[in-house]
Amino acid sequence: MRYEEYTIEGRNAVMEAFRAGKTIDKLFVQDGCHDGIIHSIVREARKQNTILNYVAKERLDQMSETGKHQGVIAQAAAYEYADMEEIFQKAQEKGEPPFVFLLDEIEDPHNLGAIIRTANLAGAHGVIIPKRRAAGLTAAVVKASAGALNYTPVVKVTNLVQTIGELKKRGLWFVCADMQGENMYRLNLTGPMGLVIGNEGEGVSRLVREACDYTAAIPMKGEIDSLNASVAAGVLAYEILRQRGGNC
Amino acid sequence: MRYEEYTIEGRNAVMEAFRAGKTIDKLFVQDGCHDGIIHSIVREARKQNTILNYVAKERLDQMSETGKHQGVIAQAAAYEYADMEEIFQKAQEKGEPPFVFLLDEIEDPHNLGAIIRTANLAGAHGVIIPKRRAAGLTAAVVKASAGALNYTPVVKVTNLVQTIGELKKRGLWFVCADMQGENMYRLNLTGPMGLVIGNEGEGVSRLVREACDYTAAIPMKGEIDSLNASVAAGVLAYEILRQRGGNC
Repeated sequence: MRYEEYTIEGRNAVMEAFRAGKTIDKLFVQDGCHDGIIHSIVREARKQNTILNYVAKERLDQMSETGKHQGVIAQAAAYEYADMEEIFQKAQEKGEPPFVFLLDEIEDPHNLGAIIRTANLAGAHGVIIPKRRAAGLTAAVVKASAGALNYTPVVKVTNLVQTIGELKKRGLWFVCADMQGENMYRLNLTGPMGLVIGNEGEGVSRLVREACDYTAAIPMKGEIDSLNASVAAGVLAYEILRQRGGNC
Repeated sequence: MRYEEYTIEGRNAVMEAFRAGKTIDKLFVQDGCHDGIIHSIVREARKQNTILNYVAKERLDQMSETGKHQGVIAQAAAYEYADMEEIFQKAQEKGEPPFVFLLDEIEDPHNLGAIIRTANLAGAHGVIIPKRRAAGLTAAVVKASAGALNYTPVVKVTNLVQTIGELKKRGLWFVCADMQGENMYRLNLTGPMGLVIGNEGEGVSRLVREACDYTAAIPMKGEIDSLNASVAAGVLAYEILRQRGGNC
């Protein structure tokens, strides 16, 4: 299933898309850019019969959605949202208990991308986002994800609370990040697990929090209120990874 | 020592600046904004004899550097860079071995702000940044730091390698983040510690890495190369905090 024509911007993001075997329809490279990674990208493009265009920097600036194209923009089929079964299949293939991220209305594309990147590296099998009031998979998200979108399935659901209910029936336990919760180091975060990360300003919404089994607090030694949402997701995800014994 | 007139944007950032006792010279509030936090900000402004201006949204949009003023912009004295002694003093006051972040050319203001925020909450006593080729304390950094700049001293140095040498003489050990390093869970990260975080694209530069005592790798279970710089800083900082026994 394809959605729309999509742009991928920046050297690492474009290179990763090629490496992951994404279908890139067109590639735009800035006139006069000849360094190593651009060469590798162009070689990949030739191998895959991608339509290759050398254009002036102004043209790229105009096309760019993120303002950070670094001399290369690719047009690809839109990233497809995955099906929930792909997450379970991924866990099964790896022989691991399922580990998913649920994002409760993350609004900042930079945060969303960074969290998908973290999900990939912390060994999560997928990311679940709500259909409404949340950032979608825009070019800025794709760039911030640094290629993770090519590997980590992202599922879009209508109602997070309902999804939590369904996944509980399949054996998952849910932990949400909240500073009122139990110290994360004292919780048992092993087994099939859903990690719920709240909105940047409001945190996890009440109904979602009530649907969770645990509330985990990251220890706070400073004066301010909270970590950045993507940092909090990283710290909690790595505590889960550590407890799962996946720390090697 | 004061640098220049500075703007602080957004409700939480402005409120935090007042709470922390920063001198706010002028406050601009959007006409018709009357909710709770704006009320609190205006009350603080009156208490401190801040010059108060109600202006149209268009005016704020024009003044805004981040594009996210949320109806309130404050003009303050610039954030002052701290002296290295303030970091040691802070550690001494808390009766803790010194714990500092060293940022090797972090370029993205959003990352720099998020890392200072993390430094505050993970119990670091200060952040050291190089004078050149790195983001400075701009409005975007101040906003992303969510108030942490009011509490966590930021020191600017000419040469990171030289600074590492000087701090080693004062008993600090240095660990840098690098995926070629030793698994962070197997390193002893207790005691007086400097955590070195590298540039978003290039990682830690060679000379800085060679000056470090350890190289710590965050376990990577996924397909892509690296975490976002601020997420990596968070994961490593919390591993240091956990090992220091500050996890409660």
